[in-house]
Amino acid sequence: MTKETLLEQGKTAKESAYILGQMSAVQKNEILKALAKALKDRSGYIIECNGRDVAAAREKGAANAFIDRLGLNQDRIEDMAKGLLDLVDLKDPVGEVEAGWKGAKDIEINKVRVPLGVVGIIYEARPNVTADAAGICLKTGNSVLLRGSSDALESNRAIVHVLREAGERAGMPAGAIQLVEDTSREAASAMMRMNQYLDVLIPRGGAGLIRSVLENATVPVIETGTGNCHIYVDAVADLQMACDIIINAKTQRTGVCNAAETLLVHREAAEAFLPLAGRALMDKGVQLRGCPETCRWIPDILEATETDYETEFLDLILAVKVVDSLEEAIEHINRYGTKHSEAIVTNNYANAQRFTAQVDAAAVYVNASTRFTDGGQFGFGAEMGISTQKLHARGPMGLKEMTTIKYIIRGNGQVRG
Amino acid sequence: MTKETLLEQGKTAKESAYILGQMSAVQKNEILKALAKALKDRSGYIIECNGRDVAAAREKGAANAFIDRLGLNQDRIEDMAKGLLDLVDLKDPVGEVEAGWKGAKDIEINKVRVPLGVVGIIYEARPNVTADAAGICLKTGNSVLLRGSSDALESNRAIVHVLREAGERAGMPAGAIQLVEDTSREAASAMMRMNQYLDVLIPRGGAGLIRSVLENATVPVIETGTGNCHIYVDAVADLQMACDIIINAKTQRTGVCNAAETLLVHREAAEAFLPLAGRALMDKGVQLRGCPETCRWIPDILEATETDYETEFLDLILAVKVVDSLEEAIEHINRYGTKHSEAIVTNNYANAQRFTAQVDAAAVYVNASTRFTDGGQFGFGAEMGISTQKLHARGPMGLKEMTTIKYIIRGNGQVRG
Repeated sequence: MTKETLLEQGKTAKESAYILGQMSAVQKNEILKALAKALKDRSGYIIECNGRDVAAAREKGAANAFIDRLGLNQDRIEDMAKGLLDLVDLKDPVGEVEAGWKGAKDIEINKVRVPLGVVGIIYEARPNVTADAAGICLKTGNSVLLRGSSDALESNRAIVHVLREAGERAGMPAGAIQLVEDTSREAASAMMRMNQYLDVLIPRGGAGLIRSVLENATVPVIETGTGNCHIYVDAVADLQMACDIIINAKTQRTGVCNAAETLLVHREAAEAFLPLAGRALMDKGVQLRGCPETCRWIPDILEATETDYETEFLDLILAVKVVDSLEEAIEHINRYGTKHSEAIVTNNYANAQRFTAQVDAAAVYVNASTRFTDGGQFGFGAEMGISTQKLHARGPMGLKEMTTIKYIIRGNGQVRG
Repeated sequence: MTKETLLEQGKTAKESAYILGQMSAVQKNEILKALAKALKDRSGYIIECNGRDVAAAREKGAANAFIDRLGLNQDRIEDMAKGLLDLVDLKDPVGEVEAGWKGAKDIEINKVRVPLGVVGIIYEARPNVTADAAGICLKTGNSVLLRGSSDALESNRAIVHVLREAGERAGMPAGAIQLVEDTSREAASAMMRMNQYLDVLIPRGGAGLIRSVLENATVPVIETGTGNCHIYVDAVADLQMACDIIINAKTQRTGVCNAAETLLVHREAAEAFLPLAGRALMDKGVQLRGCPETCRWIPDILEATETDYETEFLDLILAVKVVDSLEEAIEHINRYGTKHSEAIVTNNYANAQRFTAQVDAAAVYVNASTRFTDGGQFGFGAEMGISTQKLHARGPMGLKEMTTIKYIIRGNGQVRG
């Protein structure tokens, strides 16, 4: 039954994708404006429905951080609406001719950007993702199947209801934005194997969700968001700058994928840097877990285990390790990192060059915080997540990453000889 | 045991990939020249080893076409060597700055092309693929794990032995080119799940192989090469041109993915076109399978079944269907096609525009043969296969498609506020 409903949704999504793919940027922008207006007009209804989710989460004894992510209020709905309006001003990548040239026998080859088709998104209890993802998909001419968490079902239903109603009135095909209301594991699994209708599946959430999708999906996947990020402080570095960067990368926001989880320090900088950084970090409430050498310079902290170096804490916890060389730092990062964001703090030009060349990650920084790995900070104007895979998209995914290309070849009777 | 060997190969490949990724274009080109020379110098040895594969295939009663693809001679080895030398002249995509701009707080963002890392290739009994794939991977700074078919094992061993020996003398890391000698299904399955070492897996072969990889792989996959391609002859078209195109697309080479498998003809063109095309196709030995309307105009042919429309014949067989409209043709193609290459023959400008916009395929043609979907014909100079998926690469994959990007961000102490 569930599977039938899902397949029916997939089919409708595909049909709508063919219509969306032909829509002009102007048409899509008019729909986006209508969606933004509807969110604001119907904010009372959405907040009311969201209230039921929040109450249920409270009753289950959910953590405050969880309830904070789940909850909606007037401001947050205004933000969601603003997110949709911001999309209006961005350039539509669909139709862009990436390149054009003459091939064999002078066939005219154009490489043109087109929508992916139907995008599936599996995500956790953050209702703002529902509107954001729907908006980005619409802007790029893709249909979207949104499969949120059961904890946010009432909120997601309300948002999608409001968006669809307003969208359809503005000319949006009915299947363009759909919520998968079945939040069972089975429905998620069925989605992961719906190759006939889904062109790509984007899981947005914790490591467990991502792993499950990678393990089970036959649909092409864009892996997002796990970030075991490092800050490496080189032998010759501006130590105050290094201190500011690690404080920012660790504490500005802890629950995010571009936050730092391990600090690596060159042996020659350890004596001067570690007491300074240790004090500053502990003042911010960070629990440190150090290698034996670290513990020499910052007494009374926990000793780090192998597991600590592997862990994305997403919390006020930081593993710290003293290394003998730049090479050891790079090896550590390439071994334990998740290929997300990595930074060196150095005044040595050659070391900066070497670090950026040899560290294998989506974003490699010299003398800046890893927290900048973000579509907004990069200037993309919108972001669908941060890809940690190498195929298709790497790093923050903007509008262009939600498209693919098509070769259009025009001839006058050419055949291959 | 097998799995251990394979993991060891994966580990060595990964280590070599880090070295290859740092090599200059000049260094890689010197190695390519050494590989080409070695293939020619050792052609006698390679042909001798290949002879054992060919003899075994003959003994098993393999088809002539199979033996033709398997067999090597002096000319074919010269071609393989030339393929490697051709790569020397192509621009190295590694290191190319795709874009660069200033992000938040003036961080300097560069989007730079880098190798994928370790590429796995699972392919059938075509020993030339061994040298081609090794060369393309080397040129783009990737290590490669080659898993060919058991039927070509002696040939592949010889080729890889010669390439590695010459390569290492020229400075190539030892794990850059490796053959997976275990040709069991288990080894293939293990490769498909070797996420810790393989960055991408490219299956090159028949529909069964591709399906198995899609079904079982957890490693990111680039799907290649199944092509159920159509030629649609519109109501108003140059019928002689249409005839030339279908003859070329169907018969110039039958066993390839960009050959046509179904001919669609607008009802208004049927009477004039079908007898003409039918005669020409049958003269070339093509067996036609038509819809009832087709059979009216070309008597004495088989009636087409639903299965015929779904089949990639890869043979001198063509399904033929009369359609009532351009829309019906587009719907048929989007339903039965494999999103590879599709062509319209028309003199109607609006129909040409509509066909290219609405047909969902890697390459969409107006008035030219689908046989042009090929890296060589497109002018890429080298080709790793033809992607029929939408993520990462679509259509012929050249050197650029064998790379990914990395964001390199340079700052002077920026932290996120």
